[in-house]
Amino acid sequence: MGRIIPEPVFELPIDLPDRTSRRLVRELHRQLQNAIAEGRLHAGMRLPSRRGMAARLRVSRNTVATVYDMLIAEGLIEAQHGAGTFVACGAGTARPPSPVEAPDPRLPRLPETYAIGAGATGAPGAAVNLQFGLADQAAFPFDVWRRLSSRSLREFARRPSFAFPPAGVERLRAAICGHVAFARAIACDTESVIVLSGAQQAFDIIARTLVTPGSVVAMEDPGYPPARAAFAAAGARIAAVPVDDHGLQVDALPPEARIVYVTPSHQFPTGAELSAERRRALLDFAADTGAVIVEDDYDGEFRFGGEIHDALQTLGRDGSVVYVGTFSKCLFAAVRIGFLIAPPWLAPALIATKKLGDWSAPGLSQLALASFMEEGHLARHVRRMRGLYAPRRQALLEALETFGAGWLETIPSTTGLHLSARLKGGVTVDRVVASAAAAGVVIERLDRYALVPAHGEAVGFGYGLHEPEVIVDSIRRIACGLDATAPTPQGRRVAEG
Amino acid sequence: MGRIIPEPVFELPIDLPDRTSRRLVRELHRQLQNAIAEGRLHAGMRLPSRRGMAARLRVSRNTVATVYDMLIAEGLIEAQHGAGTFVACGAGTARPPSPVEAPDPRLPRLPETYAIGAGATGAPGAAVNLQFGLADQAAFPFDVWRRLSSRSLREFARRPSFAFPPAGVERLRAAICGHVAFARAIACDTESVIVLSGAQQAFDIIARTLVTPGSVVAMEDPGYPPARAAFAAAGARIAAVPVDDHGLQVDALPPEARIVYVTPSHQFPTGAELSAERRRALLDFAADTGAVIVEDDYDGEFRFGGEIHDALQTLGRDGSVVYVGTFSKCLFAAVRIGFLIAPPWLAPALIATKKLGDWSAPGLSQLALASFMEEGHLARHVRRMRGLYAPRRQALLEALETFGAGWLETIPSTTGLHLSARLKGGVTVDRVVASAAAAGVVIERLDRYALVPAHGEAVGFGYGLHEPEVIVDSIRRIACGLDATAPTPQGRRVAEG
Repeated sequence: MGRIIPEPVFELPIDLPDRTSRRLVRELHRQLQNAIAEGRLHAGMRLPSRRGMAARLRVSRNTVATVYDMLIAEGLIEAQHGAGTFVACGAGTARPPSPVEAPDPRLPRLPETYAIGAGATGAPGAAVNLQFGLADQAAFPFDVWRRLSSRSLREFARRPSFAFPPAGVERLRAAICGHVAFARAIACDTESVIVLSGAQQAFDIIARTLVTPGSVVAMEDPGYPPARAAFAAAGARIAAVPVDDHGLQVDALPPEARIVYVTPSHQFPTGAELSAERRRALLDFAADTGAVIVEDDYDGEFRFGGEIHDALQTLGRDGSVVYVGTFSKCLFAAVRIGFLIAPPWLAPALIATKKLGDWSAPGLSQLALASFMEEGHLARHVRRMRGLYAPRRQALLEALETFGAGWLETIPSTTGLHLSARLKGGVTVDRVVASAAAAGVVIERLDRYALVPAHGEAVGFGYGLHEPEVIVDSIRRIACGLDATAPTPQGRRVAEG
Repeated sequence: MGRIIPEPVFELPIDLPDRTSRRLVRELHRQLQNAIAEGRLHAGMRLPSRRGMAARLRVSRNTVATVYDMLIAEGLIEAQHGAGTFVACGAGTARPPSPVEAPDPRLPRLPETYAIGAGATGAPGAAVNLQFGLADQAAFPFDVWRRLSSRSLREFARRPSFAFPPAGVERLRAAICGHVAFARAIACDTESVIVLSGAQQAFDIIARTLVTPGSVVAMEDPGYPPARAAFAAAGARIAAVPVDDHGLQVDALPPEARIVYVTPSHQFPTGAELSAERRRALLDFAADTGAVIVEDDYDGEFRFGGEIHDALQTLGRDGSVVYVGTFSKCLFAAVRIGFLIAPPWLAPALIATKKLGDWSAPGLSQLALASFMEEGHLARHVRRMRGLYAPRRQALLEALETFGAGWLETIPSTTGLHLSARLKGGVTVDRVVASAAAAGVVIERLDRYALVPAHGEAVGFGYGLHEPEVIVDSIRRIACGLDATAPTPQGRRVAEG
């Protein structure tokens, strides 16, 4: 292997006056971000190695490694195996990508892959980020979590031979049972809960257990690409079923579907809620055809009014529903714990499949999370966050009503951390996205989530991260940039939301 | 769903005089363990629910849940979905298992499953545990780990939007590079390291990336069942290749093998080391046929003399080797972090496959582990543990020599946490196992790891957990039970080991 490529000439002025380590990371990160956004570091350009950069700037290799990490996570730079680290294509001013080698004949195929946040637009370093799926993690009580983690670790150290069962620690399974019973009116028993290292693992093990090559999996379109990738990798044929303001169009389901993937609380990405009538129809479909319903409730904890519908898992009577939940939104994403609730006929097979790749979800986090839930911190935190998100959501609703009059129409929604809107009046997704980019705002384009292009002529806005005034200002600026004839203040109406 | 089965009548006297919570767990655990071992709680018997047991004993549900957890992890009880918790079949006095329902027609197939510690024998509550794979985790510096975890969490809390790349945090990848370069003379760069949630994930994603249905995967026989299960689940035909005192019999490899799985430092489970000649032959085989070698180095850090062989990953020149490592043995199993080192042509495909089921390995543990390694704690701990294990190993070697004369022959080994021995003089595995069980010692029977029964006529002994005198005494008692004519003290010889 060995690095035979010489260090690149790197002449970007980086200025780090405050050399305390916490400042250093932030500053170096900011300056590299800016350099990429402004094209001074252009796409495809090779960065110095961590060691080289560290020596040049007289900082530690850790500092450089951390900053490179952050830039990789943001998609601004990418590591290319054996060749070094490069400014990512698509970041800043585009340059032709470095040549791709022919695939090695030993590799039978590349799995279909997906990008997290596929529909996010604009420079990742933009000032305002209205991407989907971003919770305000800064409001999480990390001090409580740290205390509980330390306590769990102390207890564990007293009997470190404790083995973690593949379905999860009993205490946590019991706590999850109590949580979903309370928060989502789901009837379950401890034995039906399987603790996972994130919701993605649920889609993967469901796919590997139930899909045989050629099985039809019906998915909402637009829909959630990471789940789609898991089903496709298991050999499924994906049937793209349209959604409307009442969620999945159940009467468009292909009768041969073996699995139906659905996000009933808050359709991803349109935000629509599955109506009571459609819920019944979907369960009837499953009863008639023997299909299994995968109910992904990725941000159902955050509910803002509207009639409360029972979960499909609650309504289903014949063990046709697998409910999937996550702690990424209501805790923080790095905790890497999700769960599923499976009917008795399916749970043992899912556990066996899970064991093929994973003996247990991270053990100490399971213990800390169990304590966090048992002591009421989760319920308290969700309640608090709902109070934090409600005015952000209301501000977005009103701003879309006010500044969006004439060119968009908000899709009705009751739950979650984002809203979407269909475009009208001849305004295209491209125009809206261009205007947002010019205003320094990252929004979502729904066509990137759709297999059938016509299903995705809409845009979306996450409200998890920013204060109400920032959200209002962003929508106003997008509208202004779109058309010099943005509505005047007297044209404002207040949404009824 | 709902529990319709009434609570069982449960008349076991449980006596809990000391009601401090730490004592309670230990006492309840011990008393239930004993009741199962002695058959007072017989196999197949239903236990009260957590709630019912808690009410009866006037303890918290958490206490009961923790104890049930421990018993489940030990294989003494098992949760049956929707039906309750039962004393496991095979624990204590056997009773017929509860009737198994016919599989649901919605389930296309059950994945081939595996038991962790498949070859361990005897009652799990036995006094001495010489099972494979048990490190002395009580000696781990949990205080240091707790401090580093807290610090990582504090740093993370300052920028909680930090996203963890799917291949792992750069800092940790760099630290792993440094570690394997130092400890195993492996040449790698940061980009070739992929951080995983355990070594099992390596086998799973390698299988899913490289195996097409019907691909031949050559595995050592006896071999490591969890890896075998991962390859089989991906559709591989497993070719069982025999091993001898020099490890895998490379000349017996089927030429059509696409993957060769091998444990060269310390063959699992025989303990043999792959000779230098065989290493070269294996690499030649891969070069000739295009096969990929999976080098599982599960306990290679613990080396006790002998000539040092380069890792296959170091010797290989054409990107034919994937090296797999774990922190389960040198840290503690619950940390759930492993890694692989992949050649450039394969790494991107492995990362894409990993993302299908897992966005990233547990984030905060990655940060803590990076600090642990950067600050030299890992190297220090491994050095210390080597000092702790060496006399245990020496005691086992000498005891096998002394008390095993005439009926077993230790398989030469230089590395790891266990030794195995072939039987001779007409002594059968069943006889040795029966004698061990009578002596209250859990040992390993290698036939449980073999696809071809003749490959597994041996037994094995882990020396990670117990003090030298306990180990010597155990082997002595097994030998005594085996035959009243155990060698007299003057027959002792000292092993040259």
